[in-house]
Amino acid sequence: MSKPIYVLSGPNLNMLGTREPEIYGNTTLEDIHNTLRERAAKSNIELECTQTNNEGDLVTQIQQAGSKGQAIILNAGAYTHTSIAIADAIRAIDIPVIEVHLSNIYQREEFRHHSYISPLAMGVICGFGANSYHLALETLISGAQS
Amino acid sequence: MSKPIYVLSGPNLNMLGTREPEIYGNTTLEDIHNTLRERAAKSNIELECTQTNNEGDLVTQIQQAGSKGQAIILNAGAYTHTSIAIADAIRAIDIPVIEVHLSNIYQREEFRHHSYISPLAMGVICGFGANSYHLALETLISGAQS
Amino acid sequence: MSKPIYVLSGPNLNMLGTREPEIYGNTTLEDIHNTLRERAAKSNIELECTQTNNEGDLVTQIQQAGSKGQAIILNAGAYTHTSIAIADAIRAIDIPVIEVHLSNIYQREEFRHHSYISPLAMGVICGFGANSYHLALETLISGAQS
Amino acid sequence: MSKPIYVLSGPNLNMLGTREPEIYGNTTLEDIHNTLRERAAKSNIELECTQTNNEGDLVTQIQQAGSKGQAIILNAGAYTHTSIAIADAIRAIDIPVIEVHLSNIYQREEFRHHSYISPLAMGVICGFGANSYHLALETLISGAQS
Amino acid sequence: MSKPIYVLSGPNLNMLGTREPEIYGNTTLEDIHNTLRERAAKSNIELECTQTNNEGDLVTQIQQAGSKGQAIILNAGAYTHTSIAIADAIRAIDIPVIEVHLSNIYQREEFRHHSYISPLAMGVICGFGANSYHLALETLISGAQS
Amino acid sequence: MSKPIYVLSGPNLNMLGTREPEIYGNTTLEDIHNTLRERAAKSNIELECTQTNNEGDLVTQIQQAGSKGQAIILNAGAYTHTSIAIADAIRAIDIPVIEVHLSNIYQREEFRHHSYISPLAMGVICGFGANSYHLALETLISGAQS
Amino acid sequence: MSKPIYVLSGPNLNMLGTREPEIYGNTTLEDIHNTLRERAAKSNIELECTQTNNEGDLVTQIQQAGSKGQAIILNAGAYTHTSIAIADAIRAIDIPVIEVHLSNIYQREEFRHHSYISPLAMGVICGFGANSYHLALETLISGAQS
Amino acid sequence: MSKPIYVLSGPNLNMLGTREPEIYGNTTLEDIHNTLRERAAKSNIELECTQTNNEGDLVTQIQQAGSKGQAIILNAGAYTHTSIAIADAIRAIDIPVIEVHLSNIYQREEFRHHSYISPLAMGVICGFGANSYHLALETLISGAQS
Amino acid sequence: MSKPIYVLSGPNLNMLGTREPEIYGNTTLEDIHNTLRERAAKSNIELECTQTNNEGDLVTQIQQAGSKGQAIILNAGAYTHTSIAIADAIRAIDIPVIEVHLSNIYQREEFRHHSYISPLAMGVICGFGANSYHLALETLISGAQS
Amino acid sequence: MSKPIYVLSGPNLNMLGTREPEIYGNTTLEDIHNTLRERAAKSNIELECTQTNNEGDLVTQIQQAGSKGQAIILNAGAYTHTSIAIADAIRAIDIPVIEVHLSNIYQREEFRHHSYISPLAMGVICGFGANSYHLALETLISGAQS
Amino acid sequence: MSKPIYVLSGPNLNMLGTREPEIYGNTTLEDIHNTLRERAAKSNIELECTQTNNEGDLVTQIQQAGSKGQAIILNAGAYTHTSIAIADAIRAIDIPVIEVHLSNIYQREEFRHHSYISPLAMGVICGFGANSYHLALETLISGAQS
Amino acid sequence: MSKPIYVLSGPNLNMLGTREPEIYGNTTLEDIHNTLRERAAKSNIELECTQTNNEGDLVTQIQQAGSKGQAIILNAGAYTHTSIAIADAIRAIDIPVIEVHLSNIYQREEFRHHSYISPLAMGVICGFGANSYHLALETLISGAQS
Repeated sequence: MSKPIYVLSGPNLNMLGTREPEIYGNTTLEDIHNTLRERAAKSNIELECTQTNNEGDLVTQIQQAGSKGQAIILNAGAYTHTSIAIADAIRAIDIPVIEVHLSNIYQREEFRHHSYISPLAMGVICGFGANSYHLALETLISGAQS
Repeated sequence: MSKPIYVLSGPNLNMLGTREPEIYGNTTLEDIHNTLRERAAKSNIELECTQTNNEGDLVTQIQQAGSKGQAIILNAGAYTHTSIAIADAIRAIDIPVIEVHLSNIYQREEFRHHSYISPLAMGVICGFGANSYHLALETLISGAQS
Repeated sequence: MSKPIYVLSGPNLNMLGTREPEIYGNTTLEDIHNTLRERAAKSNIELECTQTNNEGDLVTQIQQAGSKGQAIILNAGAYTHTSIAIADAIRAIDIPVIEVHLSNIYQREEFRHHSYISPLAMGVICGFGANSYHLALETLISGAQS
Repeated sequence: MSKPIYVLSGPNLNMLGTREPEIYGNTTLEDIHNTLRERAAKSNIELECTQTNNEGDLVTQIQQAGSKGQAIILNAGAYTHTSIAIADAIRAIDIPVIEVHLSNIYQREEFRHHSYISPLAMGVICGFGANSYHLALETLISGAQS
Repeated sequence: MSKPIYVLSGPNLNMLGTREPEIYGNTTLEDIHNTLRERAAKSNIELECTQTNNEGDLVTQIQQAGSKGQAIILNAGAYTHTSIAIADAIRAIDIPVIEVHLSNIYQREEFRHHSYISPLAMGVICGFGANSYHLALETLISGAQS
Repeated sequence: MSKPIYVLSGPNLNMLGTREPEIYGNTTLEDIHNTLRERAAKSNIELECTQTNNEGDLVTQIQQAGSKGQAIILNAGAYTHTSIAIADAIRAIDIPVIEVHLSNIYQREEFRHHSYISPLAMGVICGFGANSYHLALETLISGAQS
Repeated sequence: MSKPIYVLSGPNLNMLGTREPEIYGNTTLEDIHNTLRERAAKSNIELECTQTNNEGDLVTQIQQAGSKGQAIILNAGAYTHTSIAIADAIRAIDIPVIEVHLSNIYQREEFRHHSYISPLAMGVICGFGANSYHLALETLISGAQS
Repeated sequence: MSKPIYVLSGPNLNMLGTREPEIYGNTTLEDIHNTLRERAAKSNIELECTQTNNEGDLVTQIQQAGSKGQAIILNAGAYTHTSIAIADAIRAIDIPVIEVHLSNIYQREEFRHHSYISPLAMGVICGFGANSYHLALETLISGAQS
Repeated sequence: MSKPIYVLSGPNLNMLGTREPEIYGNTTLEDIHNTLRERAAKSNIELECTQTNNEGDLVTQIQQAGSKGQAIILNAGAYTHTSIAIADAIRAIDIPVIEVHLSNIYQREEFRHHSYISPLAMGVICGFGANSYHLALETLISGAQS
Repeated sequence: MSKPIYVLSGPNLNMLGTREPEIYGNTTLEDIHNTLRERAAKSNIELECTQTNNEGDLVTQIQQAGSKGQAIILNAGAYTHTSIAIADAIRAIDIPVIEVHLSNIYQREEFRHHSYISPLAMGVICGFGANSYHLALETLISGAQS
Repeated sequence: MSKPIYVLSGPNLNMLGTREPEIYGNTTLEDIHNTLRERAAKSNIELECTQTNNEGDLVTQIQQAGSKGQAIILNAGAYTHTSIAIADAIRAIDIPVIEVHLSNIYQREEFRHHSYISPLAMGVICGFGANSYHLALETLISGAQS
Repeated sequence: MSKPIYVLSGPNLNMLGTREPEIYGNTTLEDIHNTLRERAAKSNIELECTQTNNEGDLVTQIQQAGSKGQAIILNAGAYTHTSIAIADAIRAIDIPVIEVHLSNIYQREEFRHHSYISPLAMGVICGFGANSYHLALETLISGAQS
């Protein structure tokens, strides 16, 4: 069996689906993880899905994914815009990283328009809600198969 | 039959696949268009695919897509970073626009990091080569079906 | 009979009045042209009214107006903020140019606050809707008569 | 009879017409006020015309015009570019304000290109000398009648 | 009896409570002054409360408060962001100044985020409506008593 | 009994009172917490007081306070100026947050003049030492009672 | 007898010599005025010396000096750095203006390093205390005599 | 016979020599083309000379020159400073491009000091009028011969 | 025996020597710690060596070193450029801190050229690989002995 | 006899008076030196007057003046705006330095508005031609005598 | 015989051809000077060729060339980007100056994109290696003959 | 015997130890040179130690060191922050350069935080007084021996 794909989510994504359901819907991050795992299982791929509010933990998870996994789907949340440490962790590993965001970060505040991660990512997908994660997974699966 | 999806490509994308095949591969924009059309046909969707080097033509094509189509997949090339006119054309229509780029624009020059289109797009997909177009099409098809 | 006054409109102004009538009203650019022509006719002045989405065409139209007309009423739309080529065309002619905008550009995005045209124009009128064109025409007519 | 229109002029406009007549002509601010009053009288509208060199007085005049008048024609002179207090006074009233300037402020120093007033004004007219005031008055009268 | 505390308010604060009561409420600046005076009287402290739209008057009032008062509660309104003269007046006196704002200035335009007064103030309180003044008074009273 | 008020303090505030007592005094953060608890108890309000040096922990504490508490008094210390993650946590909750600082941050380095938290806070109180916390508590209590 | 020289001083200069004499000395602005008048009298020149905290008054005084005086010695204080209105008043007159400052403004805050007045002044003298005024007077007298 | 050299000129260069002959002389772009062709003929080199006001056309002409020509002499006029699309066209071809300007662009407005083309050009020649084109041609001929 | 010297390393330094040995060599952080300990032992000095990916932990470690150690050798990695919290921790202690970096941070991205730590450090040593740590230790030992 | 005053002039000041006499007059730097020496002699003060085009020489001359002289009148010419080395030389000496300029540097290019010398000078005198030197000398003499 | 043309080269150009011949070739500055002299001799023109690492010397050489020569070919090397003194020397002379650079400075670091010399030069030639000097000489010779 | 190491010091370092001994101590640059020579002699290495106030001389010394020496210890003083010419000299040589500063330049003015030399240096050592030179020498000796 191939190495797992890591799905890493950063600060405040644990709040997803738990409030303002009329706006954000009822889908929780756990729901997203489950749907992703189902899709991955069809291609016989294991997923490791985690969430943390902690920048340092995200650094460590990326390092570990780098040694144990085949790829990372990364939604670093607000740390996307402020963390050189996370960017350095990506620099320190050899597997592809796809940057995803639920919202279109370019429709939001100016300080969300810059990402320390983008220049290091294989590609960026943003604005499609939970679908941003799914598109990233499809890309990795099709890449792994082609 | 539903309204067509427009796939609009901007300046210099006509050069794709015609030179430096060892770097960019042999896939031409016409090849991408053909593969996209095949996929769309499976879902019984018509595609209108065009390319132009001309900013004003792109403005006009977006206006026309806005009145005749159901969605736009837009790779505005270099005009992404300089054209308020194209952005205004998007503002003037009511159908969703997905912004795509072949390359990861965040790995390139500073002046490619800003897009006048992103704040108006449904979402952004970049860095996956021809696959950026395909992911956009999948998103639109799944959205149309869900 | 005197030389004509040119009324030149830029990108996306062809969309005027064709959508969201509850917001922008039903007045089309053609309607504006007609009302302007009526007013001009009273003063025995011919109007040449055109619209283009194309920066280069606007450059050419300004050059031609410079050799055949007595003045220009110019709404360069989004090119106002990005086109040095249009500004250079104004520099290359000898007739007065009045810059007009339908909306108050200072109530909009920061990038609409700068105009390459303003320093070269006789004056600027913005924010009065179709009336911006009419005020410009009155100014030119009264100037031509005084 | 309807409420009066206020014509408020700011610092140094009292100097108009009193020096360098070969450049600026002999028209004083009082002359402009008189011509404006004549035009307003034809439409049975009263004008209140004042000038002050004092930022605070201009704030107070705008407040008073807001409670007693139907509209303001405002040439805030140099305070246009520096006074948030005047902008706040406009924010605090409910009647339309048209910003006018005798000269084309975009042909002058960089620091005259920004106006705190423009985003709050109904529209802006600049560069037509005394005619800037007249165009503003025509706009208000035609608006009042339409 | 101790020296009075000065409560100085700047431009447009005289408009408070006189319009849009559904938004800002009916409390006028005079109402605030009265409530503050009542509270001060309980601690046997005299208040001097003034409002002016004029930057120079505010400079003079600060100078006078500096020679006759024990402290200043200062809401300089829009001059907060533009007046070095007012800041210099504070530099020229020896009594503590508390900067207050009714609204949270950091939720408003960028140009309201900088204050020339803050670096010279004992402290800053903003965003609590009339309560901002009261908290400042409590601080001064408790300081005077401790 | 009502929900508790959370008093959350960020990095280095655990050092308060433990060194340079001739400058900062001997008051520790624990002392402040105790005095606040006494005051709250009089109004029959429970306080939850914590301190952490960790950005991610502060994110989590804000999330928890959002679900269990009625309000937050937040001194995020240095994270005030750098943490979008903490700001996002505040965006994700529904209870009021008052931003407090012991020192007047506007008398310090330029990089302390910007706060990611202020635009999201109900209000800001800074520069009054431990009193900044107390003023915030008074505001919340009086608000809860009014 | 020749026209008078105007010595105009701006905000907070009325505080000179009235406090912190151990730092700034006991010399008041009135003392400076008297010494200047004595020197001027020797050359049979009349001085008009005024001080105001009000920007608008300074504008008016410059206008009046321009019509009645032969030259201006101007210490605009804090308005030096913020007032375009005062600069415009200088633009509107024909007599020479010498800009003076008691302190060396380049040793102070960054925002004091820019002067709207300097580009319009004959010359600038700063950093010599009351002597800055005297050097300006000597320059004007020697110029008047040469 | 060798491949031709392309001489491509951008917006407003068609106006050359047609107005203000006392300043710019009577030399038209056609005159320059003719003199260049004569010189090239001596070295048995064919020239393709075109002018367009249209950014997109210039993109296309560069692409075509890239496939059919040996080198480009490019005066992109105002598009020099704004067009990433033209720069991308140069990136997409393999033949040398020499950037020329008639005027010394560094003596003109700030916005003319930056060129998107220069970093991609073999070299830059500006300020020598029509001679700028001739020096470029000499360089290419001598390079072709050496 | 004297107080220990703390050697604190930040995010991603745990990756040192574990990958790309042909570039970075095989030396791990543990190897560096061991060599440093050997050298320190010769001078009868104890070292406390730690690494963490967590900003908050680094804050705490600096606080603890401040109370128990005689000096700190600090390589804060990416937090060097983003963490005011770490800088504040250094401000809160009394022992000397030497800032070290393995690489020459000035040969890297612009955002690595600014350090929040440098203004608070005794000195800075960068670019000498593991030797940067050793030079810092020598400096502290020689300082301790002189 | 007292220590000499040094009059140090920088690059291109040797060209003074040697060209364009209709604009700059015929006064050479040597003429200025002679007039200054005459005035100084009356007060029994020796002057050392030099000019150099060389930044390093000016550094050395300032150092030497610092050890042998009582004061420096310094016109560093263009080095005023670019030389930290000259500023450091002034920092390294204990005698007063008066910065002078012949022209009003604030009427010239933006890059002449900043001086590395001003924050270190006793005062600044500019815009009075050769008189700038004389006013500086008068100041030093009167200071030496008072 | 006519006045000589000066060929002035600045810092580090003495290193040309002495190292890395595989990159820069073996041509020394002396070789360039010799070839230039040969070409000039054919037109009976004398060349004065010098090189210096010293900014002040370059200032002096430009002054001397201004009084003895007919034109200057100037490669100021790194001083191009930092020296206002050299620019002032050019301002102080009346003969034409052509700015040349061996490399295309726009392909290099940002700080090499600005030249203090360009706005004062007749024209600029860069990127053609030694040929940049030759093109400048041809321009001057043809200008002298036309 | 191996090639010498060059110890090059720039402007104002000749003043070291000659003034304010209570602050900077009595150590002169000559003292530093002597101690360095003693240390070098132990490793049988020759040192060439020079100081100059002249940018051009420093350029030349670096060039000469590049051809005759094995390494450079460079304290370019104020030229560190302004001299591209010195940086170019380093680019033009093949031996390692260590940048040293006596003071911690990051504790000083903003303009001292940027170094043109750092990106070209092997490493940077600053803030340790004379010890900065010694650490650099140790690094070079240990490197030469390892």
